[in-house]
Amino acid sequence: MSDGIRIGIDIGGTSTRAVAIDAEGTVLMENQFATLQGADAVLSLVCALVAELRDRSGRPLLGVGVGVPGVVEWPDGLVAHAVNIGVERLALGRELSERLDTPVWVDNDVNVAALGAARIYPGGGSLGFLNVGTGLAAGVILEGALWRGTRGVVGEIGHVAIDPAAGRCPCGQMGCLELIASGSALARALPRGVTPGALTSRLLLDSADVRTAFDAWVRGVAMAARMLVLSVGVDRVVVGGGAAALGTLLHDALVDVFDAWSKESPFIASLRLPDRTFVGVPDRTATLGAALLVESAPELHPRER
Amino acid sequence: MSDGIRIGIDIGGTSTRAVAIDAEGTVLMENQFATLQGADAVLSLVCALVAELRDRSGRPLLGVGVGVPGVVEWPDGLVAHAVNIGVERLALGRELSERLDTPVWVDNDVNVAALGAARIYPGGGSLGFLNVGTGLAAGVILEGALWRGTRGVVGEIGHVAIDPAAGRCPCGQMGCLELIASGSALARALPRGVTPGALTSRLLLDSADVRTAFDAWVRGVAMAARMLVLSVGVDRVVVGGGAAALGTLLHDALVDVFDAWSKESPFIASLRLPDRTFVGVPDRTATLGAALLVESAPELHPRER
Repeated sequence: MSDGIRIGIDIGGTSTRAVAIDAEGTVLMENQFATLQGADAVLSLVCALVAELRDRSGRPLLGVGVGVPGVVEWPDGLVAHAVNIGVERLALGRELSERLDTPVWVDNDVNVAALGAARIYPGGGSLGFLNVGTGLAAGVILEGALWRGTRGVVGEIGHVAIDPAAGRCPCGQMGCLELIASGSALARALPRGVTPGALTSRLLLDSADVRTAFDAWVRGVAMAARMLVLSVGVDRVVVGGGAAALGTLLHDALVDVFDAWSKESPFIASLRLPDRTFVGVPDRTATLGAALLVESAPELHPRER
Repeated sequence: MSDGIRIGIDIGGTSTRAVAIDAEGTVLMENQFATLQGADAVLSLVCALVAELRDRSGRPLLGVGVGVPGVVEWPDGLVAHAVNIGVERLALGRELSERLDTPVWVDNDVNVAALGAARIYPGGGSLGFLNVGTGLAAGVILEGALWRGTRGVVGEIGHVAIDPAAGRCPCGQMGCLELIASGSALARALPRGVTPGALTSRLLLDSADVRTAFDAWVRGVAMAARMLVLSVGVDRVVVGGGAAALGTLLHDALVDVFDAWSKESPFIASLRLPDRTFVGVPDRTATLGAALLVESAPELHPRER
């Protein structure tokens, strides 16, 4: 067993990445391929990536973990509404397990990224992985383990409605935090022709409109981080998703917001948010987290239930 | 051991209540006394209540749990800023343990009430106890155990700042939810001469001003419950604290708010908040929860550390 590998797969909207890790969680090798659309293509691609890593490693395969965008029924690995990969409904865990003849765990992409972040940003205790991309949601690690919420809902802070002036959310509510603090929200708020990926400190200095849009968005992200710390009680917040590409630019701006809040409120100051908030997670977070699914719930192997 | 009792004490602003429970958690007997002010008086009163129950039961005492308003350092039982009982700083756990010659656990009143609520409203999984009184804060039970947050902060949803128009919070921030949804907020918002305790469905029908103030407050409480479900992922929310005295009046109004939100949002409808929200916890919640502290953390007995 100890020389076996675990393989983690992250099925993203653009690329599907895979890693193989050893018993200590060290990444041994990785590969990737452009994401394919539709159930059959997704299954074939994942099987091909797994086979390549297994053959290349020459070691026994202990299990496969998969992160996928969409609603995932844990622990059965039933995926629904994964529109980014053209999948409406797929028993991904069971299908893969049969094809690969190995235990397979499937969870949503935010949860597996949270598991990976907890490994990459060690420190024990708890962690909230704030996924700032198309939407806004958090994966939650408590005492080292993924907390899935009693009914599968947890970290859905994007749909805490806070400001009616922000308009109607696709979820139907008015003023969800997602309308203010997601990556999509930033893209909408920036002046025409400016994309979030093009933001630089120079551009923020030169354009008042860009600065205004960016600052309002950063305040939203800061609110999301504060909400995770205050309500869920996590020790650290890691900002990931597309927005993490802004790196230091976002981190420095978040610290400015936290510092301003701390000047007003000794209570907020006591939380020391700047020391507990990180931005910019390597690409490998989600794949590593997916591989860690294999160890996190051996008793929930769907094939043995 | 199995015929031993555990005693739970809830030190409230007005009265200090105690219960003795058996190994199964059944309440065997109870007593109470008007709360006394100051460290020496508090210690003496708790010792007297414990001694009376122990003597009356004629059984061995396995341990004592205490809930106290204020900041409590877990698991050492150091109490700070318990202004309601005239205590600025007191090593309550250690002092009681020495005087009573028995293991003592101390936690804050909201946490112990959450433990009690999880026993009174069974159903497994997780629960948020929303304390709506002078302030607004929640105790959180996850998988049957009290979740204290990695740094002792959790369920502090009263200090999620959501509406600058609500003014400055004593914590220093603008627009904290506590300014809208606490019992104090309701008292401030009601017309002069009307207290929260005097609210009836008749009065709500007769006075538009009363109705407006009440409805705005109920929306705030509903927001707090929704935030607990969305962010922390609790299965059930139990509304306690002074506001729970409103009972059905509050529960029906909360359900109306949830129903309105559900009409707008299939996502919120899918949470089925009306089925998961309870109001009106018996007096015994906090004392029972305090007694359950004794079993919840035997490894953390301060005298043995």
